[in-house]
Amino acid sequence: MPAFQTVRGMRDLLGEEASTFNFVITNARKVAKLYGFKEVFTPVVEPLELLSAKSGEEIRQRMFIFKDLGERQVALRPEFTASIARLATTAMKNEPKPLRLFSVGTVYRYDEPQKGRYREFWQSNFELMGSARPEADAEIVLVTNSFMTSLGLKGYVFKIGHIGVVRGILSQEGVDDKTQNAILQRMDKKEYDEAFKLAPSSKCREMLEGLLKLKTDDCYETIKKIKEYVTSYEKALIAAQNLEEVLKLVVESGCPISTVDPAFARGLEYYTGMIFEIYIPELDIALGGGGRYDKLIEAFGGEPTPSVGCAHGLDRIVMALQIQNAPISTDCTKRVLVLSVNETLKVEALKIAQLLRRDGVTVEFEVMGRKMGKALEDADKRKVDFAVIVGERELKEDSVMIKNLATREQILVQIKDLPQKIKS
Amino acid sequence: MPAFQTVRGMRDLLGEEASTFNFVITNARKVAKLYGFKEVFTPVVEPLELLSAKSGEEIRQRMFIFKDLGERQVALRPEFTASIARLATTAMKNEPKPLRLFSVGTVYRYDEPQKGRYREFWQSNFELMGSARPEADAEIVLVTNSFMTSLGLKGYVFKIGHIGVVRGILSQEGVDDKTQNAILQRMDKKEYDEAFKLAPSSKCREMLEGLLKLKTDDCYETIKKIKEYVTSYEKALIAAQNLEEVLKLVVESGCPISTVDPAFARGLEYYTGMIFEIYIPELDIALGGGGRYDKLIEAFGGEPTPSVGCAHGLDRIVMALQIQNAPISTDCTKRVLVLSVNETLKVEALKIAQLLRRDGVTVEFEVMGRKMGKALEDADKRKVDFAVIVGERELKEDSVMIKNLATREQILVQIKDLPQKIKS
Repeated sequence: MPAFQTVRGMRDLLGEEASTFNFVITNARKVAKLYGFKEVFTPVVEPLELLSAKSGEEIRQRMFIFKDLGERQVALRPEFTASIARLATTAMKNEPKPLRLFSVGTVYRYDEPQKGRYREFWQSNFELMGSARPEADAEIVLVTNSFMTSLGLKGYVFKIGHIGVVRGILSQEGVDDKTQNAILQRMDKKEYDEAFKLAPSSKCREMLEGLLKLKTDDCYETIKKIKEYVTSYEKALIAAQNLEEVLKLVVESGCPISTVDPAFARGLEYYTGMIFEIYIPELDIALGGGGRYDKLIEAFGGEPTPSVGCAHGLDRIVMALQIQNAPISTDCTKRVLVLSVNETLKVEALKIAQLLRRDGVTVEFEVMGRKMGKALEDADKRKVDFAVIVGERELKEDSVMIKNLATREQILVQIKDLPQKIKS
Repeated sequence: MPAFQTVRGMRDLLGEEASTFNFVITNARKVAKLYGFKEVFTPVVEPLELLSAKSGEEIRQRMFIFKDLGERQVALRPEFTASIARLATTAMKNEPKPLRLFSVGTVYRYDEPQKGRYREFWQSNFELMGSARPEADAEIVLVTNSFMTSLGLKGYVFKIGHIGVVRGILSQEGVDDKTQNAILQRMDKKEYDEAFKLAPSSKCREMLEGLLKLKTDDCYETIKKIKEYVTSYEKALIAAQNLEEVLKLVVESGCPISTVDPAFARGLEYYTGMIFEIYIPELDIALGGGGRYDKLIEAFGGEPTPSVGCAHGLDRIVMALQIQNAPISTDCTKRVLVLSVNETLKVEALKIAQLLRRDGVTVEFEVMGRKMGKALEDADKRKVDFAVIVGERELKEDSVMIKNLATREQILVQIKDLPQKIKS
């Protein structure tokens, strides 16, 4: 039988990489707590109807869709927001606002696998629901900032924009929502020519093209230019003013914003306001992003609930940490091998292993029945710190030998002092 | 639009229950570390061929199976062992033995939903690969014991047995593997009449029926009886002796074994040796279980690798903790609301929020733009501990007001002393 492989686009996480994943997940959880976000767990499998309601054509076409044995149309979640929106309109409908919800787990998209892109990938997700104010937008940008800082990621920067600038222009030019979505989707991919071709008038097209030229190296300067440019487009102007407010809050709080992008768009159709993405110099794909979505909860049958959220791609963040050789704070607990000098003493050895574990010491118990020399040699190879050797004579004195595998030193220790001795 | 629901048999985990889940997952991870198990992450979606290879007819019929967009037959994992066996025969083929691998995550089975049974559920999974010795079996039982103890679960007990007793009898009576599996599957469900009907001879049937009568209140006594009973069935006798060895190791190490079950069977076809399950008095469903599977890695194309493993049903364990009203050690960090007395000070307020968060304090920043009284009233309702109020006058003296929402006391504090003040 040939060796089995993972499904194309999916992968196992092992060894060092698994530890780094754990480190990243742990930090996401810590930051969520610092910002008052409560963790919720939602299913990986959701009704297709829910997931396709507002996610955008592009993601809809890339979902893992199937029927369960009860002939229900279901799909693997391509992101968390639809599930969280479901919660906000059902089980958590009556919770006081604002709701701050955190999730972390796998999501699924049928993309062409490439560097940093998998068909099963990990996201941490933060949603702040119930506030239309720029403070809420700022909190979502800042929680991302704190997350990146906590990981020790270097040189990361934010790109920020406002979907209301482009939508404001398009609405006033009479472009329907569907065409707006199609234009924004192409702009998201930087396919500007194709995007602008969809504009129904030359005036509209020129307005969009003009946006591209407003970007400067200074964020406030760019916003000033946008405001001047859209002065006769009321909604677009309001959007630019709103963006300026958010920008001020996050910049003053120490968040590294590198760019205000006047023509910024993101793939999801539900965004209505501020949007952002985060990058490091070494990678040209975003490590995460998010934005405001004020109509989604309503579209899901809930009360009007202005909301803002973000998601972080943990696979990419792990890749970024690997590229930067970031020192991951893996805890440096001592590792101990416990073994007996002969077969008859293995029960005693196991009891001593349990004693140490109860005291928080990481113990590998010898389960291979190897001869002493072989077992120690192997432990040495695997960088085990100490061997605790259980022998007849020592046991009679309630003692065991500890061997330091690095220094080869060997000392006799009373069993009752063992945990203390190993920890020190 | 009607409110969306979860897919039948799946559920959201919120609030207290989500915290308890996190507590259980965290403890599984801690215990894994204590026993030297390394965490690995494998995909939720696996090739159908892999998952159905050795899992047993019953589970095969209850899998979520579908084709991905590339027409691959895939399924959602119904357990972890097949994925771990894949690892052992591919990426980790050359790792030194024993391999100790830990996983935690969701698994999927299309069962009829009922109390404690969901179609998406959580498992923690431990596999120890490369040792045929009873010490390895003991380690797997003991890691389960330590996990249950760490959770504060009360009155839990182990039921233990050995699949080799029944299989030993059946083989010697000439029963083929397929029929053996069918018999064991029914015995697992306690459908003994139907199980024994499948026995090809009356002698074979009587031997099986006799097993049921060997159970006593004393574990060693039961094993003694089994050994006498199967004395002319060589393989069954070896199985009973092996079980006795494992039993001794775990009992001496303080593991509460309540029952040795001579006719014990489990649903998975790949077991070859010791098997066990764990129960609390308040529930008649197992919280977890496992056993030895010495042929699986070979069947997957690997070197002969005797192995033993276990899985714990985290949904059921959470239910058990709820039933027992177990005190979950949720950390009791102080919660703080930071707000400004007016709109113009919100940037300053946000900066102070960030200052506190950098120091590890959980801060909810006021994002609703509410008037002071309203915001404090709401914070009080949600049991926030302190409000930090940023006002013009105080700010001029580099200070803010802290209000203790329980005692209503209010004091002026220098901003630089703020984190210290709140933590104390």
